Amino acid sequence: MSPFFSFTIDAECPGSWARAGTMQTPHGTIRTPIFMPVGTQATVKSVSPEELRAAGAQIILANTYHLMLRPGSALIDSFGGLHSFMHWDGPILTDSGGFQVFSLGHLRKLSEEGAAFKSHLDGSPHLLTPESVMRIEAELGADIILPLDICAAHPCTAVEAKVAMERTHRWAERALIAKEQYRPEQTLFGIVQGAFEPALRQESASFVGNLPFAGLSIGGLSVGEPKAMMWDLLRYVTPALPRGKPRHLLGVGSPEDLVIGVGMGMDMFDCVLPTRVARHGGLFTNDGRVNIKSARFRVEHGPVEEGCDCYTCQNYSAAYVHHLARTEEQLYYRLGSIHNIRFMLRLAQRLRESIMDGTYPAFRDEFIARYIPASEKVREEQREKWQAARRT
Amino acid sequence: MSPFFSFTIDAECPGSWARAGTMQTPHGTIRTPIFMPVGTQATVKSVSPEELRAAGAQIILANTYHLMLRPGSALIDSFGGLHSFMHWDGPILTDSGGFQVFSLGHLRKLSEEGAAFKSHLDGSPHLLTPESVMRIEAELGADIILPLDICAAHPCTAVEAKVAMERTHRWAERALIAKEQYRPEQTLFGIVQGAFEPALRQESASFVGNLPFAGLSIGGLSVGEPKAMMWDLLRYVTPALPRGKPRHLLGVGSPEDLVIGVGMGMDMFDCVLPTRVARHGGLFTNDGRVNIKSARFRVEHGPVEEGCDCYTCQNYSAAYVHHLARTEEQLYYRLGSIHNIRFMLRLAQRLRESIMDGTYPAFRDEFIARYIPASEKVREEQREKWQAARRT
Repeated sequence: MSPFFSFTIDAECPGSWARAGTMQTPHGTIRTPIFMPVGTQATVKSVSPEELRAAGAQIILANTYHLMLRPGSALIDSFGGLHSFMHWDGPILTDSGGFQVFSLGHLRKLSEEGAAFKSHLDGSPHLLTPESVMRIEAELGADIILPLDICAAHPCTAVEAKVAMERTHRWAERALIAKEQYRPEQTLFGIVQGAFEPALRQESASFVGNLPFAGLSIGGLSVGEPKAMMWDLLRYVTPALPRGKPRHLLGVGSPEDLVIGVGMGMDMFDCVLPTRVARHGGLFTNDGRVNIKSARFRVEHGPVEEGCDCYTCQNYSAAYVHHLARTEEQLYYRLGSIHNIRFMLRLAQRLRESIMDGTYPAFRDEFIARYIPASEKVREEQREKWQAARRT
Repeated sequence: MSPFFSFTIDAECPGSWARAGTMQTPHGTIRTPIFMPVGTQATVKSVSPEELRAAGAQIILANTYHLMLRPGSALIDSFGGLHSFMHWDGPILTDSGGFQVFSLGHLRKLSEEGAAFKSHLDGSPHLLTPESVMRIEAELGADIILPLDICAAHPCTAVEAKVAMERTHRWAERALIAKEQYRPEQTLFGIVQGAFEPALRQESASFVGNLPFAGLSIGGLSVGEPKAMMWDLLRYVTPALPRGKPRHLLGVGSPEDLVIGVGMGMDMFDCVLPTRVARHGGLFTNDGRVNIKSARFRVEHGPVEEGCDCYTCQNYSAAYVHHLARTEEQLYYRLGSIHNIRFMLRLAQRLRESIMDGTYPAFRDEFIARYIPASEKVREEQREKWQAARRT
């Protein structure tokens, strides 16, 4: 056992796979289930570290791909790592860069050695290997790090899924070896792949779960497949994982995903969604996502959500937040992001409490019955807008 | 004398017209000279009220023109005024909307009654009169309010200047009468005009200075004329003003303007410049304005300015601020704005101290000798960029 990392289970739900746990890292304790705000470029968009802390953030995620390109992992290393560079003294998890590289399409080329790609910023050539990713993440200095993996596209054939999974497994073993020469205070999680094939998912969970990783991240989901398919695949993954290691559902998700995912045995979640939808006017409430720009908030004297304890709701009327959103004032992006982050963290806290006192299934069912998620149509429109914005 | 407003002079500089004073308003005490950050749309761009307070802001300015159009002064009134609407409990000054209306060009039409204009947002017709402006500002609820005035264009003929000034004087008298029916806790300042004619400036200062206003704002300057002309005109204005009333140089300015303006007898300053140039990468230091995006900050471990006590410099390296600026992260706009606002407020504080201990002229000369202002060329390029951005 590492002196730098531990995970203990505080309670388990008898009626589901939900559990509450406690994780120890060099930068602090994390109570699970937990949502991790995403700080892609060493900043959670619009929000300061102090505000993250006040919103209840216990751990944040940063993206290796973006940071290795700009400002560069060696530069961050020279500042003592991400924590001191970005002025966040809590735990950090870095992903491996794999997901972003595989999203680059024609700009990348895969081989057994690793993934060669051209930077989306300046076209410069780079090669990520299981070994180089361990070095880069050592330079970034996060508490929890992930190995290079291959995220198959949706849809893909069973053969493609198998090839990608098997290479991911070989890379996992190479990463474990490479990791040994770097910082012992960093903890390496493994990544489960297997695309959309139940048998492969089960095989991957079993294989990666038996390697000496301290925790497991489930990759390759929420990449365009229907939500129902994702939950169905987890039915094969979770039982094949070791009970005692924390489980991280990579890139997921929305409030309803958090509530359901906990029941599927997941302990950790991360997603840009809460901050991204906030920037577009979408704010979370227990009744679902509302659009703060809509006219009904123009004269709303109360907060965005009655009873919410976030900085935004404690200090500003919904009408003022509406005004800032309509006038596209920078302060809006901050206030909206803080509200949504706090919503996710309070939700994680409520989920934990429900597990601790044995009421998780009822909590889940009540939440889902009440919470109206964004419709598939709205989701599709938003996805198109974001993709259009990324192309410009 | 009003029980809601007072101004006392704490010290006067024997070698210049500089003075240090103390102003009492319903929302607090203001030590002068003072810089007022501008919150055009009921928010100082990128900065929260708590951050303004921490940066030393004692009073902020908000724009009547923008707020009357969106969200509307009646709506703000229904929230108890600007203070509670925007969660800022310190003093506020609102301008009259005149300057913005006269900038609208063909969209406005002047008469003795007032200024008719079409909204830049939706083309809807509006009429501002000296009387309606008093009502609107009463609804906004600031501590200090300004009357409708006419800001002549630069350049303009002597006849145009005289006509505009005389109408401004008649409107000043109408505003004083209209004000009586509204909130006694609000204090009305007069506005001195006279364009670029020394004799008219002197006449206006004398005329408006003798009306029962509690303070005087000097309008119509820093609108495109050379800096030297502005300072020269103040040589005629200041001696014609009553000693005991505070003097506000409207829309000015940069750090060097603050230092020089104080010596010209000005007590209060406001400008969007510190926050606007920050958003474009320009940060103030005692050696002049630097561009945080420039490569020399890429690996700078120290703060933006050594010795600065602002939140940004106390918590982040210049390299991190550079990284955020280059990646256009929202947090950059906040950190840059906080730094520049704090710089202006610390500068005002140092000016006050130098007046109190009799060393202002030496402080001024040392500051000006050391501080390298943005060149006329850089200023011109930036102005063109902003204007281009406003047209889109």
